[in-house]
Amino acid sequence: MTRIEELPVRDELRGKSPYGAPQLDVAVRLNTNENPYPLPEALVARIAERVTEAARELNRYPDRDATELRAGLAAYLTRTAGHRVGPEGVWAANGSNEILQQLLQAFGGPGRTALGFEPSYSMHALIARGTGTGWLSGPRREDFTIDVDAAVAVIAEQRPHVIFVCSPNNPTGTAVAARTVVALHEAAQAARPDSGALVVVDEAYGEFSHHPSLLPLIEGRPNLVLSRTMSKAFGAAGLRLGYLAADPAVVDAVQLVRLPYHLSAVTQATALAALEHTDTLLGYVEQLKAERDRIVAELRATGLEVTESDANFVQFGRFEGPAATSTLPLTAHEMWQALLDRGVLVRDNGVPGRLRVTAGTPAENDAFLDAVRAVTKENNR
Amino acid sequence: MTRIEELPVRDELRGKSPYGAPQLDVAVRLNTNENPYPLPEALVARIAERVTEAARELNRYPDRDATELRAGLAAYLTRTAGHRVGPEGVWAANGSNEILQQLLQAFGGPGRTALGFEPSYSMHALIARGTGTGWLSGPRREDFTIDVDAAVAVIAEQRPHVIFVCSPNNPTGTAVAARTVVALHEAAQAARPDSGALVVVDEAYGEFSHHPSLLPLIEGRPNLVLSRTMSKAFGAAGLRLGYLAADPAVVDAVQLVRLPYHLSAVTQATALAALEHTDTLLGYVEQLKAERDRIVAELRATGLEVTESDANFVQFGRFEGPAATSTLPLTAHEMWQALLDRGVLVRDNGVPGRLRVTAGTPAENDAFLDAVRAVTKENNR
Repeated sequence: MTRIEELPVRDELRGKSPYGAPQLDVAVRLNTNENPYPLPEALVARIAERVTEAARELNRYPDRDATELRAGLAAYLTRTAGHRVGPEGVWAANGSNEILQQLLQAFGGPGRTALGFEPSYSMHALIARGTGTGWLSGPRREDFTIDVDAAVAVIAEQRPHVIFVCSPNNPTGTAVAARTVVALHEAAQAARPDSGALVVVDEAYGEFSHHPSLLPLIEGRPNLVLSRTMSKAFGAAGLRLGYLAADPAVVDAVQLVRLPYHLSAVTQATALAALEHTDTLLGYVEQLKAERDRIVAELRATGLEVTESDANFVQFGRFEGPAATSTLPLTAHEMWQALLDRGVLVRDNGVPGRLRVTAGTPAENDAFLDAVRAVTKENNR
Repeated sequence: MTRIEELPVRDELRGKSPYGAPQLDVAVRLNTNENPYPLPEALVARIAERVTEAARELNRYPDRDATELRAGLAAYLTRTAGHRVGPEGVWAANGSNEILQQLLQAFGGPGRTALGFEPSYSMHALIARGTGTGWLSGPRREDFTIDVDAAVAVIAEQRPHVIFVCSPNNPTGTAVAARTVVALHEAAQAARPDSGALVVVDEAYGEFSHHPSLLPLIEGRPNLVLSRTMSKAFGAAGLRLGYLAADPAVVDAVQLVRLPYHLSAVTQATALAALEHTDTLLGYVEQLKAERDRIVAELRATGLEVTESDANFVQFGRFEGPAATSTLPLTAHEMWQALLDRGVLVRDNGVPGRLRVTAGTPAENDAFLDAVRAVTKENNR
């Protein structure tokens, strides 16, 4: 058996493990922020139709520029996100991870740095590493909001080439105010007056927010990019369809680094079918928002500390750990295990003293809340 | 209108154009080495079935490790490529481009170099650039074969971390002998006695060769990787399914850089359906091999110089240009245009004095050969 260390791999990969939550077979899976509602059967049938059409030409390369899909995504944003966007200002890829990778290949990379405000979506740092981009970790307040003055100071000092702003933020659920993004964007440009710097607003969970999309901020700001996904609001994590909206020049730039024909004809066909069923899927989003708000309220009623959430998940704690004042005599990992023992899988993202739970169906959320109450009762001081 | 140059893009991207052949609407398209045979209707129906199943769970992330698909690809290689491979020695991604990108992220990258023998598949150099890997261009003989002594000398001098060997080579069609790959692999390890170096055999057109696959060479050579695709032999360019076979440690290493859930559930479902129809699809390959041999023979009969081909395409010339002794008073671009004027689209890959034509259906090949004969007759000296 050859070991990785015996291969000529890059030094920084030695001793590392692959990213990814454990894929466990558990009754109630609330660990990866998936949408609990299967696609409606009418949409499944439409996917089969569209894929059948695509399969009849599968011997040909797909539309390299995904023209029809980008038009569909642009129309969706225009209708739902408060700002008119054309197809030339939209780009699609295999999940927003690939969108972010392409952005870092074009605007980050060797000799450049990217800044994120942590805890945040851990793939930002991992994709930076994968593209040779230096990683800078910026601060958040105790309540996980971004302290604008502290953030601006870090930007002025570190002069990052790329800044990630995740809103609503994963794993905390925290929305970022438009004026905060504007301030960070201004600071980023001021820190690099010659070239400018790219600000990437990762709005993967945007549809679940109590606040409107940050999309209108791209107007007049060619260095500001909005990233989105169909994994969550469209209930299509299995599809791997991420997209961005920005000045068309950003789309042109990304095309210099994208792998040609990166997006398969079946992916394009399936995404187009899903867009036809937008209203039904956004109906599910409304149900999930109500459930998310219920989870927040009921967790608080048990005495747990719960972070405000604008996403389809909720961060809760505190549990035992360094620097944490815990409500229960359990570490986050012990609480994670206690819930798993009761058939509910949540996520330990490594935020000290906290766990994250995805809003599922009402029945799944009841199972989760019952499990929390049972564990709380058993362990109450 | 913002221009790319006004954005904070990397310096090396300024002034560059995106990769890709023109997607023109022409009756006979023989420019991108696509398989001319649409998938059989039974397979299209099976794709619809498998995708329908997958669509019913599309709200969940796909199998991150593509377990069933890798088992299917391993069984296919074991049956057709002369060497037993297990699923743990196979990895799949969105086209072999993504396979090569992942390999360069893990084994190339900033501060490292990759060597290819040019002319070859131009994406090797472009993916190197996209991953921050330095690019080294090695030589070929006049007849486009690799001169082992010259290649070994370049390897000893330049000490690349990654070496690409494309066999059959795109765009020339040239197969590389197993003993040549062994010699390059030995030279690569000798040049880096401490760490070793990775040799990537790009066998995208392997099924069309007169020679057996180079797959057996991975035995006992953990630093040798074979890359393949379903785009050509499986007639599924629109699917974007590339894969590699290697020591399982290479698969482990690639998992450190792959984007999590990179391969969508619909892609996995479609690829599995195609594997069920392997025998029918390999029957089309046999027809294409016969057509390829016919194109070589008939082009030679017109007096053109034709490179030996083991792929589903044929390189022909010579046309006017620097250092070329041409058969016709036309440049490669003029010949390309003359054929396009007759409704036949071939590819100008930038090889001086040469063009490349894909083997199409018998009728498409007749149209191409008729067009060549007409142009030749008009322009004969």
